[in-house]
Amino acid sequence: MPTPALTRPRALSGMRPTGALHLGHFHGALKNWVGLQDSHDCFFFVADWHALTTSHPDRETLTRHVYDMVTDWLAAGIDPERCTLFLQSRMPEHAELFTLLATCTPSSWLARMPSYKDQVAADPELATYGFLGYPLLQAADILLYKPAGVPVGEDQAAHVEVTREVGRRFNRLYAPEAPVFVEPQALLTETARVPGLDGQKMSKSLGNAIAMRDSPEDTAAKIRTMPTDPQRVRRTDPGDPARCPVWPLHQIYTDAATRATCDTGCRTASIGCLDCKQPLVEAIQREQAPWRERAAALDPQQVRWTLEVGTERARAVARKTLREVRGAMGLVA
Amino acid sequence: MPTPALTRPRALSGMRPTGALHLGHFHGALKNWVGLQDSHDCFFFVADWHALTTSHPDRETLTRHVYDMVTDWLAAGIDPERCTLFLQSRMPEHAELFTLLATCTPSSWLARMPSYKDQVAADPELATYGFLGYPLLQAADILLYKPAGVPVGEDQAAHVEVTREVGRRFNRLYAPEAPVFVEPQALLTETARVPGLDGQKMSKSLGNAIAMRDSPEDTAAKIRTMPTDPQRVRRTDPGDPARCPVWPLHQIYTDAATRATCDTGCRTASIGCLDCKQPLVEAIQREQAPWRERAAALDPQQVRWTLEVGTERARAVARKTLREVRGAMGLVA
Ligand code: SF4
Ligand code: SF4
Repeated sequence: MPTPALTRPRALSGMRPTGALHLGHFHGALKNWVGLQDSHDCFFFVADWHALTTSHPDRETLTRHVYDMVTDWLAAGIDPERCTLFLQSRMPEHAELFTLLATCTPSSWLARMPSYKDQVAADPELATYGFLGYPLLQAADILLYKPAGVPVGEDQAAHVEVTREVGRRFNRLYAPEAPVFVEPQALLTETARVPGLDGQKMSKSLGNAIAMRDSPEDTAAKIRTMPTDPQRVRRTDPGDPARCPVWPLHQIYTDAATRATCDTGCRTASIGCLDCKQPLVEAIQREQAPWRERAAALDPQQVRWTLEVGTERARAVARKTLREVRGAMGLVA
Repeated sequence: MPTPALTRPRALSGMRPTGALHLGHFHGALKNWVGLQDSHDCFFFVADWHALTTSHPDRETLTRHVYDMVTDWLAAGIDPERCTLFLQSRMPEHAELFTLLATCTPSSWLARMPSYKDQVAADPELATYGFLGYPLLQAADILLYKPAGVPVGEDQAAHVEVTREVGRRFNRLYAPEAPVFVEPQALLTETARVPGLDGQKMSKSLGNAIAMRDSPEDTAAKIRTMPTDPQRVRRTDPGDPARCPVWPLHQIYTDAATRATCDTGCRTASIGCLDCKQPLVEAIQREQAPWRERAAALDPQQVRWTLEVGTERARAVARKTLREVRGAMGLVA
């Protein structure tokens, strides 16, 4: 029985709408979100404004991406009865806090972010005011909800740190006696990096992904055609799992006994690669089955509605914080 | 009889809430606003967010500044039946457009603004993300209302130019076939620079200002104690208006005949400085009288209400533009 929302600490996280999610998204973040529901009052949002800072998709695509992604959240087991799911672009409150925090945040804090410097060096087109302000918009996204924790990967820890600094500075300047913002903790959760079908990082744009809701047939076909140890050309050539792009998937998906059998079989050429891949295919299919089932049971209208209701629920929290912010800054009530 | 709003081109301008306005504000901007009402459908707003980019007043002060300023607008003859008066900080729509435009505006456009570079060099505390983005927030303020013209002083012409560039770039990127934004023209109107009581630029913070609603007695006392030509120590010393800080006020307020009399009287020491100042005192008092009358007839509640109604009227326009912007950017409807 989960603790009621009121006594659970709040956690908040967002995800850019990249469309249907793949196994990399699940093991990299979503799995943690699902687990977090039991211990935290979770707010999860679709970061569609953030998506615009680096790409310009057309309307149909972006809309589809949003709903496909939220469908995958629900498919993975995110429970809209316990969590608040919402859409960033429906929250002018985020933009308002971003605008207000901008007045007291040194640009140097943003320009020195490693993510900014590296990406702009690689692609000068990214040198927009919005891209520079990305960590500040993220700080606004977070601070509005006063979460105790923000589940992030290690590469995002610097962003949570900036959020804490921005909140601290605001409190000091405008609300030294009754701080408005809470400094959130980075919840550095264990994540697994899922390799794609080619051994590189799994990514939709690289075409090496297994989607969360791929059919059993598609999943099987994708794994079966995966390249293996290049030195295992024939069935009779012994191989080495350390050279095989399939192996890291085994390490995520199969148990120690299965791996021991496959390892020996590979090195002695007593099994073929398809034999080795079969338990992996089955493990992934087993993981996917409940996702597809849950998704199939979802009415698209219900997904929209979930987001609609969550957005209004989030708005109530955001507005309360904004009132405090405006008050502290001396804006007309 | 003014042309009805629908057929008049729209004009938009904002003013930072610095409190009760002085003669410098009137002749520098407000007088033009009053004149503009006949030819344009005017939107005038209190730029209270902008005020926060350079100072941190307390709530009571800022609130008072807002209402004192709007009272002076109405006192000067701004007609709320014909114009839309509103409060920037009540318009999350401005923050939303600012946030959206940020994603497609190069930071370099903002960093190169002369106003930014000079002011940050003088005061490094100003190097905030918000101060850098000031011209972009201004662009959002303007573009939302698709005005044909923006009345500005010459020092603001560069800001209108950035607004045009920002709008043009958005149109090109997101709406090449059906442009969302109109490129506003800078309405470079004739303004007079009113010197303060010490000959420097009139400014509240320098303590050298005559307020629009100063009493006749205060106005007279301020002018009478103004320093004059330092070489005219005694009544019998001849002076030179070119050396006198009072003279520029004469040039704004008195007619050619009066000035000729005073000029001769000064040079020949046939009049005293108080004689010279008297027609000036009377001219300023004459200008102030209707302002004080109109202000006295205003109920403070009515001023609040005017701003309230104007804000909702402005919101309807802003929301319509934002819908078009979101649509062009592909955000979920
Ligand atoms: S048997 Fe398994 S580990 Fe060995 S090469 Fe084939 S797929 Fe890779
Ligand atoms: S007479 Fe008039 S112009 Fe001459 S010094 Fe006096 S105030 Fe100035």
